[in-house]
Amino acid sequence: MTDVPVLLVLDLLGTFAFALNGALTAVRVAHVDVVGVVTLGAVTGVGGGIVRDVLLDALPPASFLDWRYLAAAGAGGALAFLLSGPLTRFLRTIDVLDAAGLGLFAVTGAGKALASGAGPAQAVVLGVITAVGGGTIRDVLVRRVPFVLTNELYAIPALVGATLAVLAARGGVDEVLGVPAALVAAAVCFSVRVVGLHYGIDAPRPLGTRRARATPEEGPSGERPPEGADA
Amino acid sequence: MTDVPVLLVLDLLGTFAFALNGALTAVRVAHVDVVGVVTLGAVTGVGGGIVRDVLLDALPPASFLDWRYLAAAGAGGALAFLLSGPLTRFLRTIDVLDAAGLGLFAVTGAGKALASGAGPAQAVVLGVITAVGGGTIRDVLVRRVPFVLTNELYAIPALVGATLAVLAARGGVDEVLGVPAALVAAAVCFSVRVVGLHYGIDAPRPLGTRRARATPEEGPSGERPPEGADA
Amino acid sequence: MTDVPVLLVLDLLGTFAFALNGALTAVRVAHVDVVGVVTLGAVTGVGGGIVRDVLLDALPPASFLDWRYLAAAGAGGALAFLLSGPLTRFLRTIDVLDAAGLGLFAVTGAGKALASGAGPAQAVVLGVITAVGGGTIRDVLVRRVPFVLTNELYAIPALVGATLAVLAARGGVDEVLGVPAALVAAAVCFSVRVVGLHYGIDAPRPLGTRRARATPEEGPSGERPPEGADA
Repeated sequence: MTDVPVLLVLDLLGTFAFALNGALTAVRVAHVDVVGVVTLGAVTGVGGGIVRDVLLDALPPASFLDWRYLAAAGAGGALAFLLSGPLTRFLRTIDVLDAAGLGLFAVTGAGKALASGAGPAQAVVLGVITAVGGGTIRDVLVRRVPFVLTNELYAIPALVGATLAVLAARGGVDEVLGVPAALVAAAVCFSVRVVGLHYGIDAPRPLGTRRARATPEEGPSGERPPEGADA
Repeated sequence: MTDVPVLLVLDLLGTFAFALNGALTAVRVAHVDVVGVVTLGAVTGVGGGIVRDVLLDALPPASFLDWRYLAAAGAGGALAFLLSGPLTRFLRTIDVLDAAGLGLFAVTGAGKALASGAGPAQAVVLGVITAVGGGTIRDVLVRRVPFVLTNELYAIPALVGATLAVLAARGGVDEVLGVPAALVAAAVCFSVRVVGLHYGIDAPRPLGTRRARATPEEGPSGERPPEGADA
Repeated sequence: MTDVPVLLVLDLLGTFAFALNGALTAVRVAHVDVVGVVTLGAVTGVGGGIVRDVLLDALPPASFLDWRYLAAAGAGGALAFLLSGPLTRFLRTIDVLDAAGLGLFAVTGAGKALASGAGPAQAVVLGVITAVGGGTIRDVLVRRVPFVLTNELYAIPALVGATLAVLAARGGVDEVLGVPAALVAAAVCFSVRVVGLHYGIDAPRPLGTRRARATPEEGPSGERPPEGADA
């Protein structure tokens, strides 16, 4: 699907937005040095796609074959390292960029899975993994229960977007309409995520348990200062 | 080995038992929402087999090629989400089911490795990884030192079962006796695990260190309530 | 590159040193039993190379195809289990052995990536992953923010060594000079790491944050006793 230039550009922008957001989260949650910030940003940007490509047997992963993915991911991480202070004023904007990346990755991930011969259920799962996998690996590395498993609507919009993309592809959307249909699916995912963010909607929890904390600190660009940081 | 219908059915039951147990553990150990419970259950069910298939270059993994694995894993996770309260009365039964899954996965994992051309030592390692890998990934995701590395007899029964399966296959057990031999190896693993559970036997520890806690909370379906859960 | 006998021997020694150091770190940081010590040592020894081989589509990984890697990794872990007490008197020596493994793995990892057709930037990244990947996986399993992301010079010497190795290979160093050039690159990495260790140099940190702790406990063979260990 990334043969289409517009989707390649969007994919690179999504990688950059994920890396920027991921690196800023890492600065906030853990005591990391320059290696940590850039690595965690890059992992957030390309990690989901790498897991997808491993599961699809599409190795080496796309983000290693095309150097522009590593460049976009590294640039996001490096920018976060250099400007971690000033960028905290733009966390809401960065969350919106992250939501755009979420929609895009869910749709392109599902599309790549279908193109590689995966069944529709597997394509939906792989679309979600593409969208949330990088942030999950980052959270594991900074020793946080992955954000996507605990709070807010994050995997669910990705599930909606990937499902719509698979339905469109399987429902006979032809070549000409393929790109617009993908963009519509990504836009629906983006909208659900932004509405969830704006109204603070959480996914349902098991009966008898309750949410850990009511603070906004658990978000992908949450406000929690690093333990021991200058107050 | 899963060409044999009886082994396929047992493999799917093992996947379901692992997912159910894994999801119940996740509910108990971390603050997870519906996405987290189902994901962690599914990861426990299919994670070990996926790591095995990556290391064997048998990609895409079996659990992605055959939708019934994802269905069994998802069903275990969803059941745990819906019935996490009532199911806590059956933790001992679920531990026994989990032990059955352990034996089965150790044996089918080692068998698949041999069938793919791995050497005997590698086949034993891959059998153990198949059996304990999913629970290890779940523990990492819920930020717990993996159960298998710290307490009780869990990897050791898997090691015994996988070794017996490899010895039987290499010792000239013919086609006709292959399935009974595999079931015997799985039964030995199951028995060692259940005896270990019943008598609370731990694996040896390095000199000068001692066990972290004497409570049962560290078990795969331990009793620890989620932090902050309603008391 | 490991066709050359001298490099194969060095690679096995590096695997052993990493496993020994990794297992001793695991004993110190977490409550692990014999399964945990040996597993964490082995993971430290072969984990980085396995991640490299997955990303290069060189599966099954080299450490599974040649049983000597598993043997070297298992021997390091078993030695650490049996002698964890006495070996704590040699932590500085073991850190130096670990630095030698770091240099060697960075160089052989980058060389294998180039030989598999990876581009130069990817080869540098894969060299670094080979060198630091095993310790990162171990840290995740014992629930520690990976050492390599937080303190000291560890990834940076690996980056220097891998870059030198790629420059030498791309700069027309011929077959005859290939092994000496690789050893020089590994020696530079080793020297930077040892100098960093000796003077306690940290990598730069984002503005407005500071190092978590000034104690030596975060090193790969840090002094932190296991929680709850006999005092």
